Amino acid sequence: MDPLKNQQNSSFSTPVCVHNPHLESLKDDILYHFSLGTETHDLPAMFGDVKFVCVGGSPWRMKAFTEYIAAELAMEDPKSEYPNICAGTDRYAMYKVGPVLSVSHGMGIPSIAIMLHELIKLLYHAHCKDVTIFRIGTSGGIGLEPGTVVVTRQSVDATFEPKFEQVILGKTVLRNTDLDQSLAEELLQCSKELGQFETVIGNTMCTLDFYEGQARLDGAFCSYSEKDKRDYLIKAKEAGVCNIEMESSVFSAMCKLSGLRAAVVCVTLLDRLKGDQVISSHEVLNDFQKRPQILVGCFIKKQLMTKAQPS
Amino acid sequence: MDPLKNQQNSSFSTPVCVHNPHLESLKDDILYHFSLGTETHDLPAMFGDVKFVCVGGSPWRMKAFTEYIAAELAMEDPKSEYPNICAGTDRYAMYKVGPVLSVSHGMGIPSIAIMLHELIKLLYHAHCKDVTIFRIGTSGGIGLEPGTVVVTRQSVDATFEPKFEQVILGKTVLRNTDLDQSLAEELLQCSKELGQFETVIGNTMCTLDFYEGQARLDGAFCSYSEKDKRDYLIKAKEAGVCNIEMESSVFSAMCKLSGLRAAVVCVTLLDRLKGDQVISSHEVLNDFQKRPQILVGCFIKKQLMTKAQPS
Repeated sequence: MDPLKNQQNSSFSTPVCVHNPHLESLKDDILYHFSLGTETHDLPAMFGDVKFVCVGGSPWRMKAFTEYIAAELAMEDPKSEYPNICAGTDRYAMYKVGPVLSVSHGMGIPSIAIMLHELIKLLYHAHCKDVTIFRIGTSGGIGLEPGTVVVTRQSVDATFEPKFEQVILGKTVLRNTDLDQSLAEELLQCSKELGQFETVIGNTMCTLDFYEGQARLDGAFCSYSEKDKRDYLIKAKEAGVCNIEMESSVFSAMCKLSGLRAAVVCVTLLDRLKGDQVISSHEVLNDFQKRPQILVGCFIKKQLMTKAQPS
Repeated sequence: MDPLKNQQNSSFSTPVCVHNPHLESLKDDILYHFSLGTETHDLPAMFGDVKFVCVGGSPWRMKAFTEYIAAELAMEDPKSEYPNICAGTDRYAMYKVGPVLSVSHGMGIPSIAIMLHELIKLLYHAHCKDVTIFRIGTSGGIGLEPGTVVVTRQSVDATFEPKFEQVILGKTVLRNTDLDQSLAEELLQCSKELGQFETVIGNTMCTLDFYEGQARLDGAFCSYSEKDKRDYLIKAKEAGVCNIEMESSVFSAMCKLSGLRAAVVCVTLLDRLKGDQVISSHEVLNDFQKRPQILVGCFIKKQLMTKAQPS
């Protein structure tokens, strides 16, 4: 890779950072949950050209995104084969097409955090620069028509505060959950140009639990009333919360620390003010789940077309 | 199922409990992350005979456990086909052989909590009684030879307290993480009879993170020294912690609330006092990962043989 060429084609050049002095002393850095490592794999050759990373909970969805983006970028494999780069493990699935990496992260903060630690080290070992990362996912909306896409302004916790609590050696450290506002605005602009579905920018509440943690009435345990639930969700709405999911806070915090330009793009599958169960048909849900992919795909395509033009 | 017959064959008869008055008003209870539901599936017919549930992070391992237990119980499918009952989703995988259900739960507290909410509702809707549940998993050991199996006495948090913090409507509720001590002793007895590997009973620390949360020096971020790490792990050891994993606290808390007799059985893949990276060969790790399966398999076989004898 010619760094000068890269500089000419980009208005900034930011490396992916780790903040760990111990890493230098590791002869081999084993990315255990990816089944990859610095001694066993040539990470710069495999991943050095990555400019966009797209992560999401479901391995099936991340494979579908890879097929979709390959077609959008006219980089389709003639045999339509997109091998899982992490085939040696069933913890995460990873696919790559040109400069776009697609990785699954499972459900919840701990699951995405393990993946992000290893992804950030992977991008660092591969000497990647100017990487933009997206979480595409599903969520419960508050007062929005199901199918609306929410681009996150700030990720807030269950008390509506924009912070992530990281426990280190038994002590709680607070981390900032700010996301890139210009990136959020650019995604909103893409949605306007597409004109296919509603997209809004708003706060996203990130919880540690899907049932009691999100005030659902349909878990195995529920000690509160329908009114308690409603009051809580209304308070969330008043604090600017448009949707609820389970990964955005640690995603925002870790991407910020490592210098990754980051956005969270989630479709709402239901309006939590009207119910708790996901009752839409398989076809409708399938259509909804494609929307964040379409939005992020549009953004990536625009970026690559801009860069391809002579400066 | 004849409840009287069940009573004769068992010294106790405990239903699986939900604690949620709202469930009764649901016409259809959709277990969304299992792709199952009370209107679309005959849950009592599919699961009414379940007496043992085995859960673990990896879908591959849970399928392997099903094949193993089928052979142990001489219930092998002649075609060796064990269909994934949750084939309609990629969130969890589920297999069943006779009275033994095997379910994957992904990594971390939020991921296993979603699964347990839906599993407890499934067992409740199926009218299951006297169910024993095991989490079989992998962990980091403290001062133990890698490959040692730890049966959890108490699950403790990152400050070594035996509690689980559940956030409900933005407020933290403390839940007890006690496990069934007689079950732990019976599992230890099984290990003695098997004589194949070392098994101990001890406390298990459950964390929200694999890297900074477990004092690892090899994550993308690390702000502490090797001495800080060692001091923390030694303190954990002094508090009776034998191993560290990421699901036992909410597993213990939810099983206790729902009347499930529960045990956590994890093998240690490394001694955290000697390192952070999992460097054993694939073959050695594979052998280690089978040990909790062998131990739980032995227990289930003994239980079924005892019940099969005339009273």
